[in-house]
Amino acid sequence: MKSNVRVAIVGGSGYTGGELLRILIQHPGVEITVVTSREYEGKPVHYAHPHLRGIISTKFTHVDIDTISSNADYVFLALPHKVSLHYVPKLLELGLGVIDLSADYRLKNPEVYEYWYGVKHPYPDLLSKAVYGLPELHREELRNAKLIASPGCNATAAILSIAPLVKEKIIDTSLLVIDVKAGSSEAGSKPYRGGHHPERENAIHPYEASGHRHVAEVEQELSLLAGNSIRATLVPHAVSSIRGVLASTYSKVVDDGVDEMKIWRSYASMYSKEPFIRIIRGHPPYPDVKYVIGSNFADIGFSLEKRVGRVTGFAAIDNLIKGAAGQAVQAFNIAVGFPEDYGLKTPPLKPA
Amino acid sequence: MKSNVRVAIVGGSGYTGGELLRILIQHPGVEITVVTSREYEGKPVHYAHPHLRGIISTKFTHVDIDTISSNADYVFLALPHKVSLHYVPKLLELGLGVIDLSADYRLKNPEVYEYWYGVKHPYPDLLSKAVYGLPELHREELRNAKLIASPGCNATAAILSIAPLVKEKIIDTSLLVIDVKAGSSEAGSKPYRGGHHPERENAIHPYEASGHRHVAEVEQELSLLAGNSIRATLVPHAVSSIRGVLASTYSKVVDDGVDEMKIWRSYASMYSKEPFIRIIRGHPPYPDVKYVIGSNFADIGFSLEKRVGRVTGFAAIDNLIKGAAGQAVQAFNIAVGFPEDYGLKTPPLKPA
Amino acid sequence: MKSNVRVAIVGGSGYTGGELLRILIQHPGVEITVVTSREYEGKPVHYAHPHLRGIISTKFTHVDIDTISSNADYVFLALPHKVSLHYVPKLLELGLGVIDLSADYRLKNPEVYEYWYGVKHPYPDLLSKAVYGLPELHREELRNAKLIASPGCNATAAILSIAPLVKEKIIDTSLLVIDVKAGSSEAGSKPYRGGHHPERENAIHPYEASGHRHVAEVEQELSLLAGNSIRATLVPHAVSSIRGVLASTYSKVVDDGVDEMKIWRSYASMYSKEPFIRIIRGHPPYPDVKYVIGSNFADIGFSLEKRVGRVTGFAAIDNLIKGAAGQAVQAFNIAVGFPEDYGLKTPPLKPA
Amino acid sequence: MKSNVRVAIVGGSGYTGGELLRILIQHPGVEITVVTSREYEGKPVHYAHPHLRGIISTKFTHVDIDTISSNADYVFLALPHKVSLHYVPKLLELGLGVIDLSADYRLKNPEVYEYWYGVKHPYPDLLSKAVYGLPELHREELRNAKLIASPGCNATAAILSIAPLVKEKIIDTSLLVIDVKAGSSEAGSKPYRGGHHPERENAIHPYEASGHRHVAEVEQELSLLAGNSIRATLVPHAVSSIRGVLASTYSKVVDDGVDEMKIWRSYASMYSKEPFIRIIRGHPPYPDVKYVIGSNFADIGFSLEKRVGRVTGFAAIDNLIKGAAGQAVQAFNIAVGFPEDYGLKTPPLKPA
Repeated sequence: MKSNVRVAIVGGSGYTGGELLRILIQHPGVEITVVTSREYEGKPVHYAHPHLRGIISTKFTHVDIDTISSNADYVFLALPHKVSLHYVPKLLELGLGVIDLSADYRLKNPEVYEYWYGVKHPYPDLLSKAVYGLPELHREELRNAKLIASPGCNATAAILSIAPLVKEKIIDTSLLVIDVKAGSSEAGSKPYRGGHHPERENAIHPYEASGHRHVAEVEQELSLLAGNSIRATLVPHAVSSIRGVLASTYSKVVDDGVDEMKIWRSYASMYSKEPFIRIIRGHPPYPDVKYVIGSNFADIGFSLEKRVGRVTGFAAIDNLIKGAAGQAVQAFNIAVGFPEDYGLKTPPLKPA
Repeated sequence: MKSNVRVAIVGGSGYTGGELLRILIQHPGVEITVVTSREYEGKPVHYAHPHLRGIISTKFTHVDIDTISSNADYVFLALPHKVSLHYVPKLLELGLGVIDLSADYRLKNPEVYEYWYGVKHPYPDLLSKAVYGLPELHREELRNAKLIASPGCNATAAILSIAPLVKEKIIDTSLLVIDVKAGSSEAGSKPYRGGHHPERENAIHPYEASGHRHVAEVEQELSLLAGNSIRATLVPHAVSSIRGVLASTYSKVVDDGVDEMKIWRSYASMYSKEPFIRIIRGHPPYPDVKYVIGSNFADIGFSLEKRVGRVTGFAAIDNLIKGAAGQAVQAFNIAVGFPEDYGLKTPPLKPA
Repeated sequence: MKSNVRVAIVGGSGYTGGELLRILIQHPGVEITVVTSREYEGKPVHYAHPHLRGIISTKFTHVDIDTISSNADYVFLALPHKVSLHYVPKLLELGLGVIDLSADYRLKNPEVYEYWYGVKHPYPDLLSKAVYGLPELHREELRNAKLIASPGCNATAAILSIAPLVKEKIIDTSLLVIDVKAGSSEAGSKPYRGGHHPERENAIHPYEASGHRHVAEVEQELSLLAGNSIRATLVPHAVSSIRGVLASTYSKVVDDGVDEMKIWRSYASMYSKEPFIRIIRGHPPYPDVKYVIGSNFADIGFSLEKRVGRVTGFAAIDNLIKGAAGQAVQAFNIAVGFPEDYGLKTPPLKPA
Repeated sequence: MKSNVRVAIVGGSGYTGGELLRILIQHPGVEITVVTSREYEGKPVHYAHPHLRGIISTKFTHVDIDTISSNADYVFLALPHKVSLHYVPKLLELGLGVIDLSADYRLKNPEVYEYWYGVKHPYPDLLSKAVYGLPELHREELRNAKLIASPGCNATAAILSIAPLVKEKIIDTSLLVIDVKAGSSEAGSKPYRGGHHPERENAIHPYEASGHRHVAEVEQELSLLAGNSIRATLVPHAVSSIRGVLASTYSKVVDDGVDEMKIWRSYASMYSKEPFIRIIRGHPPYPDVKYVIGSNFADIGFSLEKRVGRVTGFAAIDNLIKGAAGQAVQAFNIAVGFPEDYGLKTPPLKPA
């Protein structure tokens, strides 16, 4: 275990950047040396993040690879998709560790990338070197990893909701139906009409409903887990919260004899030692986004409708923490050799 | 067409009762003669419904069948499930028309009723006489109907979301997956811990997830429409709004050649002349609860993911209007012979 | 009384424009002939107002004075401040009636205008001809008025909250303290950072707190009512709703003998015959924005703390209706000779 | 400085109890040995606080003074007003330190207590021994204090908003007008009609508006600070958030020459070394509850309207933290000799 690892945050003014700051400030083993923002260059961090006033006095700078490489050991890239793409190889060459929070390095298969993103991936060899940063599936690979592709929030919730049942082949995986409900912070900090308060509050509607790209990560990871090709469809829905993603993943049991105990054992077998997964049963009966807000927990549960053989896996996460910054720090901790919960010990905030 | 039909509202102090009042006050052909409430007996209506202060001066009374039969031609029963059960035959005997907003008379098959409600239905013959009050499916039967079983909000959204595809056998109906998102008013006006503001606001969680009784209505109506037995599973989710239900109903197309145009034609063929259905495409691309709040509209749309052959039908309604009081009045209008939109012309309120 | 008055809405794509449309669609005496929008020119109204899909089929046009004057008798200007300024004299010259919802013609005294807006008013003579469109204070002047300056939402709530006590000189008016709480729709439909959902939801903060220009209207109107110069200070606060303004206006009674009955009589004497004012006491004890949403009502109440001689007048309005479009239509109805509640009969929507 | 101080929480199932748990779990110097709840006796803590599942495994017990005295050095009483009253002397006698979060021991003058609470205080001598637990005013007295009366949330915000101007006699204190806006968690975790989600969400209304008892604390503390008797009036308003209190305290400057710099210096002089006060100016211009949620910060700011000589002090706090549990722990830390921020280092959570 090292102490005083120096980290840079590239793209520090958005919501994910703000959460990285908030988490890393509380991390006993790191020093935040560089925080960049094009929009806020030269301004103190609290101009973009008024809640951090008095807590961190750093100023935003513009992105300069040399400055970063002189001052940081690890770099968190909290940039829009496709913007990270070309920074990654440069930073790796300079010997830095990279945790990329964009979608740019998450897919292993360059053809799948091209299918969903419409362009050839410029660094297909790096795709195979990147580790998909979901600790519950890739903890061993994450140790000493130099390039971590941190999962998206919808994909994290979707994968975790159903992974044990896929792994143990308890369900029919010919087409997993993933219905996601997400808060407004998922769309980022930049104002737009659909995110304007009078428009977004009280909205309940699907979006990008004819094939959401993040399903590619879900199919990749679940297929890997199952050892065969799995197909899924994912429809996200905007609901009237700021934080939180709930994934409800529907499938049918392959054998009518499957009961709740068998399903529960499957979840327990995979998750009972996970530091950031809580299996929910009883009180309350199912996961609720409400109980994870402000924390890195993924609360996981399920329901079985025996009458029709339908099972649904549920996962509730804070999209900005377990769905973004928190998970990135968790993976980083594993890569560096820190205790996995460094910076991530804050309990959820409730009621909030 | 009659004018000045006298109506009674039994159970007038809850949210559905309040909406019945609000709608019937604006109805040019009715006179509200009796409004009952056990809790508010003797008090003016605005004690339970402060928004109606100055608009209606009626006082709540207790339920008295004689008073109702002397003063009303039609009775709206806005009572909890199982409380309506015994009022209905008495009111019918006295020659009154009854619109029952509870679940008590919605199911045709007494065995199905017993399966879901755990008791034998005491008036199985009335089940066959009741008309399921969804005008889009039962308009002709509603004319002159004396007993209308008004559909539930989840069932209304679920059925309308997918009915055309079921009717035209475009989709595989071996198991329809219905994911419902609902606002807090669905649970009624009585305070309880899960509905307390600090608990309910920002919640996203499933409930009654191992088999929701209202799926029985959905299976009944869709089976009737298809001419064969259809199975469905329905999982409701609490989200952070007051009003609104969005149903997302997932299925697979039976034929890979099905395209968006074919699906759209199916919806248009069934709904284009419906006064309270709007088919949503383009601007915006999908239905949003936001755009129907305060109105009797059901906004219907769909998405097709060709890659995997998945189609999802969406229906957005105001749970207290098209999902309860508005639909009841729409069915009542048909039964009596009023124009279908009497009392229901108010446009949605937005932004709200 | 006329029927089929032709009206144009200039600036129809914002929230106030949308509310004018929604209200005038329900108005039995008008025909909406022109709706303009620079941004949505050529597009159907439902592109900007999806809730009105299927209700109105008009398309937005650009502003053309000739087209307006050929097709309309009255023009509602729902434009940003200073944009209305030069349209008004042109429209008046062509013989049209104008209801201006901006602040451009609300102040009588050109010097006061210049103090608050930083420029000389280009048409000072029109200032004296404009009627301040608050029916509760200017009903008689509104009859046959050709230029109506429709009040702002904060000013409407502030004036109505305290007018009776000012008129009857029950309170010390050396400095009225007006604390306003307002929903997000007050800032209009254009996205901006502070109005972005994740920023605005759960915010509670003051804004423009060192002297809000709309206090000028309040001082003007209350001074007129009192017959002497009255000073006030107004601090608006953003709170986490979409609709609604609550004004709490603090003052001291001039005489310790003043009791609740005297205050109540003062309110009753001024407001009891007003069609859109409800005096609130008892159940509930004070006005709540909750109970006026979707309506043109101003709910008015007060509290007296005898211990210190403090009295607070409260007014709750829907900022887009009694605070904008509804009040404009109410004043228009008076000007034209329609019943005052034409288009405005819809009860509040609750719970919402 | 001690380590491993043993603490008991009496009344651990409500919102304040939950926050005490959440904060003390993170506190490096304490051990939580007893948590009581009548309702949840025998149940694990996560039955009442699902967000703490997996974080704390303690079970609720009933209140037993002997058990508490054997197992705890300090007791936090998170009980309703008047319920704490008789526990306090017993616990003190047994040598325990007591932090009472109710209003029972906040007022120094038994007559004032009787005026507001309608009964004689049974332990008037203890009133003089209790230290009012606002560290910004009573830090020295808090050291080694055995009985701390922790301030209420409205009072905390009100006092902090204006204390510097009162202390330096910059304002007229003949009657301070305090307008408070508060989230729903202020009313506690017990469901009631006005707190039911469909009723509370989107509400904006005053309550207890004819003399709120917590003004007594404000008058007591500000009078002490000024050295003369100060009167204030406080009107709380329910707004549509879960957490947060904003106090806006209005007064007039005594001297027209007072400018922003003089006011700012006054705030800076009193607060610049306070660990949990941030003075807000510039970016953003005023405090916002949004930026303190989840933390013990009080964000303080002001506005001056020179035209009329009005100054308003603003204070934004999280009502459950700086307004309750956080402040109690801050005072406890001072009493025990811990660093003041132990358990309270978590930055605010934003956006939330």
